[in-house]
Amino acid sequence: MAYDLYYWPGIQGRGEFVRLALEEAGADYVDVARRPDRGGIGALSGLLAEGGPRPSFACPVLKDGDLLIGQTAAILLYLGPRLGLVGESEAERIRTHQLQLTVADAVSEAHDTHHPIASSLYYEDQKPEAARAAKIFREERLPAFLGWFEHVLATNPAGPACLVGARLSYADLSLFQLVEGLRYAFPRATARVLAATPKLAALHAAVARRPRIAAYLASDRRERFNEDGIFRRYPELDG
Amino acid sequence: MAYDLYYWPGIQGRGEFVRLALEEAGADYVDVARRPDRGGIGALSGLLAEGGPRPSFACPVLKDGDLLIGQTAAILLYLGPRLGLVGESEAERIRTHQLQLTVADAVSEAHDTHHPIASSLYYEDQKPEAARAAKIFREERLPAFLGWFEHVLATNPAGPACLVGARLSYADLSLFQLVEGLRYAFPRATARVLAATPKLAALHAAVARRPRIAAYLASDRRERFNEDGIFRRYPELDG
Repeated sequence: MAYDLYYWPGIQGRGEFVRLALEEAGADYVDVARRPDRGGIGALSGLLAEGGPRPSFACPVLKDGDLLIGQTAAILLYLGPRLGLVGESEAERIRTHQLQLTVADAVSEAHDTHHPIASSLYYEDQKPEAARAAKIFREERLPAFLGWFEHVLATNPAGPACLVGARLSYADLSLFQLVEGLRYAFPRATARVLAATPKLAALHAAVARRPRIAAYLASDRRERFNEDGIFRRYPELDG
Repeated sequence: MAYDLYYWPGIQGRGEFVRLALEEAGADYVDVARRPDRGGIGALSGLLAEGGPRPSFACPVLKDGDLLIGQTAAILLYLGPRLGLVGESEAERIRTHQLQLTVADAVSEAHDTHHPIASSLYYEDQKPEAARAAKIFREERLPAFLGWFEHVLATNPAGPACLVGARLSYADLSLFQLVEGLRYAFPRATARVLAATPKLAALHAAVARRPRIAAYLASDRRERFNEDGIFRRYPELDG
């Protein structure tokens, strides 16, 4: 039976981390809110308003049979073993999850550069604050996060091709997406950091070349980056 | 063998979510950075700088034998079954984790009210921005998060005593700590919301009365809230 993914249409957003895992595994899934025949965005709004005995605070939400799961990292925790995107041992699974959560922290900080005061306000209502926040993000946080992932790759006993062991995991796919997003939002600052993090740059390139990921990225299932999502290209924030 | 917990001394911070789980379970653990005989804060700094084959971006870090785990939610994912603080089924475990991650989101937003521009700047360097951020947090986000947890309790098929099933989980303990922190940081705004979320208020009170939690809260192992932690009492931010 297909997985149902509920996420806002029109942006990659946090749903993209789930999509990348489903696509890499060749899993059967329905992107419900983009399917008018499945209720489209009304089905998503209904799910968030309702949720039955397992409400979610926000999307993405994954439905697998009777089970509803919210929170990106929890969805990936659930899907990882089912999609073959995590190691077998408990140590590998916990490690993969730790790295996923660190990707999520970086994603949140990247988002907050253009919405430092509140997500409910427009960017135009917080531009001076965003400029201050983005400068520190570019100069301190972006190098800290990407440098740390470089260190994780460099110290992986199984080699630098993957974050955990020698097997591609959902955390590698999420790290790819983080780098993609940072390259879109902060092209100059990110290029500078990637020049100094060759293992991370290589992982990013290797994920992009994987046949199913490459096919997905070229398809119309992949939303394009835009200024409604997490990663936004506001040139004034790239320094 | 005892668990080793590595976290900054002097604040509750994110380490507190791990401490509450260990304390509720009566687990044997060492709060390393508060123990000069174990290397104190130098042991923590060394772990973060080094980390061997399993580096962590930040603390808390839990050491269990040879295993090192960073990220609060990943630590609780690991400890939950070992401490009897999560249900037996996969569905209960994923659900508990989803709720933990939503608590973590609320904690991050609460923190960012006093540091909306950057964690590396002083509060005094971002006070006007903090005032704007805190107003929206108080008026929109605090009621949204706590109201949603009330809804989760109200729709739990096993009753409103716990978030998942009929058994106390690490997510209940973390929700207790979120409410504690919000009551400290935003006493007026939080009291208003709790008056309208009686099931959440009851859960908070019930956790505080649990014998091991009550003993812990009264002990000097519990750091006091202060203006160096996540939850800070700046009266100007409470409206």
